[in-house]
Amino acid sequence: MILIHTPSPKEVAAYLALFRAALPQQQFVTLDTLTQPERVRHVITWGPPPALFAGLPALQAVFALGAGVDKLLTRDDLAPDVAIYRLLDGGMAAQMTEYIRYGVLGYQRHMDVYRRQQAAGQWKMLAPRTPQQVRVGVLGLGEIGGSVAQALAADGYCVSGWSRSAKTVPGIRCHHGADGLATLLSGSDVLACVLPSTPETRGLLDHERLAALPAGAMLINAGRGDLLEQNALLALLDSGHLRCAQLDVFDVEPLPGGHALWSHPAVTLTPHIAAITLRPQAVAQIAANLERLAAGLPGLGQVVRGRAY
Amino acid sequence: MILIHTPSPKEVAAYLALFRAALPQQQFVTLDTLTQPERVRHVITWGPPPALFAGLPALQAVFALGAGVDKLLTRDDLAPDVAIYRLLDGGMAAQMTEYIRYGVLGYQRHMDVYRRQQAAGQWKMLAPRTPQQVRVGVLGLGEIGGSVAQALAADGYCVSGWSRSAKTVPGIRCHHGADGLATLLSGSDVLACVLPSTPETRGLLDHERLAALPAGAMLINAGRGDLLEQNALLALLDSGHLRCAQLDVFDVEPLPGGHALWSHPAVTLTPHIAAITLRPQAVAQIAANLERLAAGLPGLGQVVRGRAY
Repeated sequence: MILIHTPSPKEVAAYLALFRAALPQQQFVTLDTLTQPERVRHVITWGPPPALFAGLPALQAVFALGAGVDKLLTRDDLAPDVAIYRLLDGGMAAQMTEYIRYGVLGYQRHMDVYRRQQAAGQWKMLAPRTPQQVRVGVLGLGEIGGSVAQALAADGYCVSGWSRSAKTVPGIRCHHGADGLATLLSGSDVLACVLPSTPETRGLLDHERLAALPAGAMLINAGRGDLLEQNALLALLDSGHLRCAQLDVFDVEPLPGGHALWSHPAVTLTPHIAAITLRPQAVAQIAANLERLAAGLPGLGQVVRGRAY
Repeated sequence: MILIHTPSPKEVAAYLALFRAALPQQQFVTLDTLTQPERVRHVITWGPPPALFAGLPALQAVFALGAGVDKLLTRDDLAPDVAIYRLLDGGMAAQMTEYIRYGVLGYQRHMDVYRRQQAAGQWKMLAPRTPQQVRVGVLGLGEIGGSVAQALAADGYCVSGWSRSAKTVPGIRCHHGADGLATLLSGSDVLACVLPSTPETRGLLDHERLAALPAGAMLINAGRGDLLEQNALLALLDSGHLRCAQLDVFDVEPLPGGHALWSHPAVTLTPHIAAITLRPQAVAQIAANLERLAAGLPGLGQVVRGRAY
């Protein structure tokens, strides 16, 4: 028996219909219709309520309806032997590429400056800049970060990438580890972060590392809010060292009313929409994984608990 | 003898050096050093002062340092038998693609709405939309418009194009003439205009045609200011029929201070920078054309006076 749960009943109903169509031989239930919790072996979920898993003694695996599983890993109701699977893409790489391309393209073409000039009623042409003149550093080189880096390189940008452990992405200069990070930061006009939140990445973008970006650089954070020290970013925007930021994720979400980021003129703020799970893709991927497990094959996208992604 | 002139002495000096390096056997002069105007057979120019051409009795051809030649065609000091050549690309197609992609991508990803929400301190996710769900209509299918249409189609958008006379662009549904325009307008969520200014296109985007766009559509004008009735656009933005506009060109440039477009919340305004002539590309193209003419071959990019582009 497979339990489907998200905070939105409408969304649960949509997923229920899609999963029943994809795997008609399986028995799917929701919290409303759950009468035999002891029979639930799999849970498909996003934002599960506290203690949900504690009442499911036969639980074998949890399938996250997203790529980020940090919140699942800090729960105390999930036994260590329960496997956690995350979405490997679910249509998110393409969306993330669009979101980051929008920021990079706006930076290259001075759209932030033209917006300020428009507000001031100022007509002034700035020297044009080609993609080849803009160095983009991508933090995170998993399926999503690797796709983003390759798409931006195809656009003509000068792209480098960084990951915690060594990786190779065709056509991208790849760095790793602490030394590699210093190299990447000092050579990135735009820093685009798509890292997951793990014990190693939390607080990574602190004052020192942000200050290592060249003067006039831009930050795009579409990974997780806790990677970034928001106050350090604000200080560096106010000092003029950083030119602008495009932020999709925050320490606390929704970002509390009145926070300085809401009204900062150099900040473009979006409500965690850079890459939203697309239902058909998510269902296809999880259904395929359920079939692999039923056939005795290892599932794809299993989270290594110690590594947290 | 070849005269080089633009309104900027710095620019003239830069072009002079580039042309002398490209064609060392030719004699290039500027207005400052011009002592024998009767020997000038070619002029390379942008924004020539009034009556410049009247003092050049041996003038055979004018090479415009841009793609738009409308201002050259309405002068009374240019004899009908003087050939006019415009830049066929000069790096402008790539820039125009970037400028229009920025607008289309922002529309697809609701960035205009998120900016308004940010200003209001509102955290609200909107339903994601894929490129395939956005219909883009490109007005103008010359070298620039054709490149823009194909690039947007490669991004996944549903692209149609329109030109005055019938054209074909691989992968793009092409319309032409008055009937074709009505079809294109009614099916374009984003209308991107890169048309030249000609007697046939002036005032094309009037109230009736803009109102024929679907409710919630966006206008991007990167062609010429006189194609668009600015007051009609303002009325349709105010009524809410059109959602937003990205404008690079205006009836009068610079746009006069205090004009309603400066401060309209749904308008992104740039100072005629969508596609700026890139000097090395422009020099290479004009130098090649001068060599063709010297060899008795027809020049490329000659303007057909009656058609005006």
